[in-house]
Amino acid sequence: MLSQSVITKLKSICGEKDVITSKIGMYAYGYDGTMLEGSHVGIVFPESTQEVVDLVNFCREQGIAIVPRGAGTNVSGGTLPSDGSIVMNFARMKKLLEIDLENYVAIVEPGVVNWDIQETLAKYGYYYPPDPASWKASTLGGNLGESSGGPKCFKYGVTRDFIYGLEVVLPTGKVIWVGGRDFSSEPMYDLTRILVGSEGTIGFITKAAIRIQPIPEAKRTMLAIFNTPEDASQAVADIVSAGIIPTTLEMMDNLIINTTEDHCGAGNPRDAGALLIIEVDGHPGDLEAQVETIGEVAKKANSKDFKVATSAAEVDKIWLARRVAFGSVARVKPNYGVNDITVPRSNFPKAIAAIEKVKKDFGVTIGTVAHAGDGNLHPLILFDQRNKDEVDSLHAAEMELCRIAIDLEGTISGEHGIGILKKALLPKEFGPVGMDVFKKVKRSFDPQNQFNPGKLIDL
Amino acid sequence: MLSQSVITKLKSICGEKDVITSKIGMYAYGYDGTMLEGSHVGIVFPESTQEVVDLVNFCREQGIAIVPRGAGTNVSGGTLPSDGSIVMNFARMKKLLEIDLENYVAIVEPGVVNWDIQETLAKYGYYYPPDPASWKASTLGGNLGESSGGPKCFKYGVTRDFIYGLEVVLPTGKVIWVGGRDFSSEPMYDLTRILVGSEGTIGFITKAAIRIQPIPEAKRTMLAIFNTPEDASQAVADIVSAGIIPTTLEMMDNLIINTTEDHCGAGNPRDAGALLIIEVDGHPGDLEAQVETIGEVAKKANSKDFKVATSAAEVDKIWLARRVAFGSVARVKPNYGVNDITVPRSNFPKAIAAIEKVKKDFGVTIGTVAHAGDGNLHPLILFDQRNKDEVDSLHAAEMELCRIAIDLEGTISGEHGIGILKKALLPKEFGPVGMDVFKKVKRSFDPQNQFNPGKLIDL
Repeated sequence: MLSQSVITKLKSICGEKDVITSKIGMYAYGYDGTMLEGSHVGIVFPESTQEVVDLVNFCREQGIAIVPRGAGTNVSGGTLPSDGSIVMNFARMKKLLEIDLENYVAIVEPGVVNWDIQETLAKYGYYYPPDPASWKASTLGGNLGESSGGPKCFKYGVTRDFIYGLEVVLPTGKVIWVGGRDFSSEPMYDLTRILVGSEGTIGFITKAAIRIQPIPEAKRTMLAIFNTPEDASQAVADIVSAGIIPTTLEMMDNLIINTTEDHCGAGNPRDAGALLIIEVDGHPGDLEAQVETIGEVAKKANSKDFKVATSAAEVDKIWLARRVAFGSVARVKPNYGVNDITVPRSNFPKAIAAIEKVKKDFGVTIGTVAHAGDGNLHPLILFDQRNKDEVDSLHAAEMELCRIAIDLEGTISGEHGIGILKKALLPKEFGPVGMDVFKKVKRSFDPQNQFNPGKLIDL
Repeated sequence: MLSQSVITKLKSICGEKDVITSKIGMYAYGYDGTMLEGSHVGIVFPESTQEVVDLVNFCREQGIAIVPRGAGTNVSGGTLPSDGSIVMNFARMKKLLEIDLENYVAIVEPGVVNWDIQETLAKYGYYYPPDPASWKASTLGGNLGESSGGPKCFKYGVTRDFIYGLEVVLPTGKVIWVGGRDFSSEPMYDLTRILVGSEGTIGFITKAAIRIQPIPEAKRTMLAIFNTPEDASQAVADIVSAGIIPTTLEMMDNLIINTTEDHCGAGNPRDAGALLIIEVDGHPGDLEAQVETIGEVAKKANSKDFKVATSAAEVDKIWLARRVAFGSVARVKPNYGVNDITVPRSNFPKAIAAIEKVKKDFGVTIGTVAHAGDGNLHPLILFDQRNKDEVDSLHAAEMELCRIAIDLEGTISGEHGIGILKKALLPKEFGPVGMDVFKKVKRSFDPQNQFNPGKLIDL
């Protein structure tokens, strides 16, 4: 518990209403998308970089750790508070400071919701490609912490690929600007890239220069239905081998097709083994040939059906099932564990086969949604958290999925981060030497382990 | 000078013929593209990662610093040996280990020449976008050290943007693989990005997984001639504002137009203030509308002439002047200093105007070539190194150009690195806090300052 004098000082820094120490406040900010709970001693809501600096300095002097937080949609535990820490909620630093169309850049504060950026940019005919599924709720600060991906990331890249520069408050309380304002080819060690994805463990981002681009003139949306996930995987490999890089290559398996049908009757065949949602974008003159090639590839991979949307309504219909996919599994079990493994695209069929084996070996129910072009799979393991056996099986199956990803030359986390949930698996992926380097980097920024301690690595 | 026992040990590690300590050998590896000279005590040519490890360990025990080297085309002094150091030349680690078209990746050793990679990939219809002007000579290891750019980098990005993963020998002698094999969305601190561009100061890259892509189906090459550099800059801004991202947007000023005419009679008008070489690539259906828009933009910016190449021979003719640009200035003065400033694209006209002022204020002759789309300018300051006054003016003018770049929210180095030449200017760009962070990063990797000491920063 914080002493009254500490609370008074915190309030003097960021204002009476921007410090919460009530029990209900603790509860509200004690969890994230993992449904786990953490414990902490208070929440502060800075409204400026200077307030962040003052809070960081004061907390360092007091030996109080700080856990940064955006919308709390994080699914790996990165925003779960740790004992005795203060939660620093960036929700009130939510200004879209500047849109500079000439240089294709926008300057934003970390508390802006991804979707709000998109809506504003759309008025000018621009957008910011990284589009995590949580984009209507998640903040850019959270996206930066996790280096979030999304359906469009196959063609365009993840959050890391769209950041020109950052204003960062370091654990020393000093403020630096890393990277450029509208170009990324800076000399020296590229600190932008280690800060993005660092889950608030080495610096708190207070401004970001994000790369924006004109909305493509045209897009085409396709739906291909397959008898088996193997056929769908083959189509994915063949589309890319044909030299086409779709914006989106989303896969859903039979279980997800059925839960989404139950949920909203999207109109997909319940006996399909898998479906692919494929989108290409670019100049209008470009797209017909690509659509034709993709149709041929799907046919060659034994598609049962292949549709090209001819209206906005048909596009929405194709996307409907994918949009409700995560929520729809609640019809089978009350809880699900999202996995986030990524493998080289050529190993995608092997990953699909391995997931089938995990189902049998661990007796778990899995529905898989995948950003297939990136080799990024989200096998959702369905369970009931009131059932200890199911929880145990969940954890065992999750460990096995990560082991499979590493065996297939992949990674345990493509876009959801490490947080606390996957921390134990990191040494398997990076080895003792890699872990040692990570620790040295963390220590060089944050020797007192004040920033989001216990996330990513233990010192 | 190395003792006989040290030489014997070095030879036992990498073989008799792979260690040079002769005077002529010292001379041959004592300089780089800056035309400065460094001093060192020997050259080793490892042929495998294990040899690199053994050399690093032995040299560390002996307190000998190591300066990595590729083809030595570096223009910022990053490969200049430092007193008492050993040069580690990676020229014999030049295997193209694997081309994996399915995953769009090639695995290469650092000694492979960029051009050799391109020629091999072209047989399969693929290429690796970063194309520094030195590509027929420079090695991928050197490109990685500097995070080299090139004409195609406006659309596609610099070296940093094309590296999935790296095998790295650390100053501890340990070997790590950082990044993925064919995806870049790894969790944890993104070490790939701090290693690329680190000029061999924190690790030696022994393998790289580079991102390759299919050669675009079509391209169109255009030449626009303008009365003034200001008009050309306006056209650059307007092309991008029109939502077009050309592959290439190269600018040459009047002086360079004239030296290239003297050199090879490329056929450009000697009274032109500037020319732009513009290339767009993509699907064939896509390009006509872009060519038309670019033609209209050029006209609006008062172009004197606008040509679209209709044959491979015409494309070559358009590129001829640009290809010989750097060499052609020898007709005016025997030496030139390459500058490498980058500014936000919207400040490009201001940078062009500022270069004009530098010419007058410092009495120097400058010819400017620019990757205008990136805002990356190479003002070549022509001088005679036998004339002390000219050398002094050169240095003063170079400092002024860097100051201008920083004032215009840019960077002192877009693609040529820092090495030793620009080291003194770094604090102006990054400030004391930034420099402190860089030093901490360097120390966390290389506490003994064994890897390329004295480059980038002094500890």
